[in-house]
Amino acid sequence: MSLTVVGTMAFDEIETPFGQSGKIIGGSATFISWAASNFVKPIHQISVVGGDFPKSELNALSAKGVVLDGVQIKEDEKSFYWKGKYHMDMNSRDSLATELNVLATFAPVLPTAAQESEFLILGNLAPQVQASVIAQMKTRPKLIVMDTMNFWMEVALEDLLKTIKLVDVLLVNDSEARQLTGEFSLVKAAKKLLAMGLKYLIIKKGEHGALLFNENHVFFAPALPLEDVFDPTGAGDTFAGGFIGHLAKTRDISFENMKTAIIVGSVMASYCVEQFGTARIREVTHEDISTRLAQFVDLVNFDIDLV
Amino acid sequence: MSLTVVGTMAFDEIETPFGQSGKIIGGSATFISWAASNFVKPIHQISVVGGDFPKSELNALSAKGVVLDGVQIKEDEKSFYWKGKYHMDMNSRDSLATELNVLATFAPVLPTAAQESEFLILGNLAPQVQASVIAQMKTRPKLIVMDTMNFWMEVALEDLLKTIKLVDVLLVNDSEARQLTGEFSLVKAAKKLLAMGLKYLIIKKGEHGALLFNENHVFFAPALPLEDVFDPTGAGDTFAGGFIGHLAKTRDISFENMKTAIIVGSVMASYCVEQFGTARIREVTHEDISTRLAQFVDLVNFDIDLV
Repeated sequence: MSLTVVGTMAFDEIETPFGQSGKIIGGSATFISWAASNFVKPIHQISVVGGDFPKSELNALSAKGVVLDGVQIKEDEKSFYWKGKYHMDMNSRDSLATELNVLATFAPVLPTAAQESEFLILGNLAPQVQASVIAQMKTRPKLIVMDTMNFWMEVALEDLLKTIKLVDVLLVNDSEARQLTGEFSLVKAAKKLLAMGLKYLIIKKGEHGALLFNENHVFFAPALPLEDVFDPTGAGDTFAGGFIGHLAKTRDISFENMKTAIIVGSVMASYCVEQFGTARIREVTHEDISTRLAQFVDLVNFDIDLV
Repeated sequence: MSLTVVGTMAFDEIETPFGQSGKIIGGSATFISWAASNFVKPIHQISVVGGDFPKSELNALSAKGVVLDGVQIKEDEKSFYWKGKYHMDMNSRDSLATELNVLATFAPVLPTAAQESEFLILGNLAPQVQASVIAQMKTRPKLIVMDTMNFWMEVALEDLLKTIKLVDVLLVNDSEARQLTGEFSLVKAAKKLLAMGLKYLIIKKGEHGALLFNENHVFFAPALPLEDVFDPTGAGDTFAGGFIGHLAKTRDISFENMKTAIIVGSVMASYCVEQFGTARIREVTHEDISTRLAQFVDLVNFDIDLV
């Protein structure tokens, strides 16, 4: 089993109603790999950072089995930086600053081993950059999962639709699903998106859980009800990392196993939001994961006599 | 098994982005009884209508096993009337007109049989009116379920808190739970509400499902993902009717059986929203109910190896 993860490694600065993070480590590939590293080794990480990115962070990922020879280090440039502020409901946020820096010219180059992975996940990036990664794979991976965001629907819709045709699973949130299809009903939106050639679609609804669709089935997983959501940044990527990590570990891409993968992703996301950035998920143990998996079973399990 | 239902019987006039209903039958007791009548007989309905309320509607309920001798008919007055308009997301609405009419002076009087029911559900009414019904019960019912709304938190908070202390299960939506406790986190809000003396709390989240809490457990049931939500009016009451109907049928008020009751309520609500008012739920068959129960099992059921 092997997994290639493509995405950003970045500095985040986060304000919530509960506090300020200062400048911390973030980025889609960072969160995906921290989550997935609990399930699968090796992970081939493809990203770009500036000379300002702490070597200690790279070493910490490396120690978790993440191979970083596909991470370009541009010593004379600065890492991608994002600053955001969450509103009281923690579901909506404003971007206060976005400095692309090294990301502006990012052209991923996959080392040989990364080209041979059985599983590939494309974190949120320009769709043409995501497509360039698929083109570098030696053989078509068993499963390609793609994340995206509303920004690309506005500035690169044609590229986005082309890239969607190349992947198996698309991850979007509810408002993105609506924007991409023009359908308010998520069930109708899902039908339109699946008709674009996807095998599976995951619609993330934040604190309201996630839906998994294929042509014939739908599965729903709630988010774990938590006393406090401290910082939602990276929760979607952490969910994606748990999802792909479980699939890569089990090498089973049936709908049944994807349901389990969604629950695993939800467990990882429930830890992510407990502290700023990666602080909580980098400390998660297998025992922690088992505890919350059991909580999910309790949360949704019911018996019924179907007459 | 027997059930007493207290609440409104009314005229509704509804505008949605998809159409206008004209003047149709609504009211909390109407929806609760239509839903519950699929599971339990007799239902003792306690309500008030004016001389303008169609006898055919009373006959239709009667034919479903709903006993109406506790429904006061004030021939010279008009029935309660509400007019509302839903926004595009169908989750929020504006009240365009509210004419209390007979409801302004409603003082429920329970016939003897209604005083002896094992199960009692109090649809949304002034909390002091709800309390007056509890006071009329000959012996304390096995379970008392109470619905309410934000309006009473604003104009009759003290009475509301007193009435909550008399019941076993409180039904509120997420914004009402937040308003009543001053807690944004629903988990924290649930703890505060349970501390008021409730045995169980149900927080309804509309299209995002419902949460059931007791002191030690939490259960989540999603709403069935639907292609179209045509009219959400009465969905919460229909949910409540399915919930109490299943409990009264099985006479089992364990947490395990309440989970099943929540799913039954969700099934009934999923039918309610398909047409204006009671049009769909009055036609629901046992086969319809079984079909959607099976869909709920598929929707949330997953297998996982807990290590």
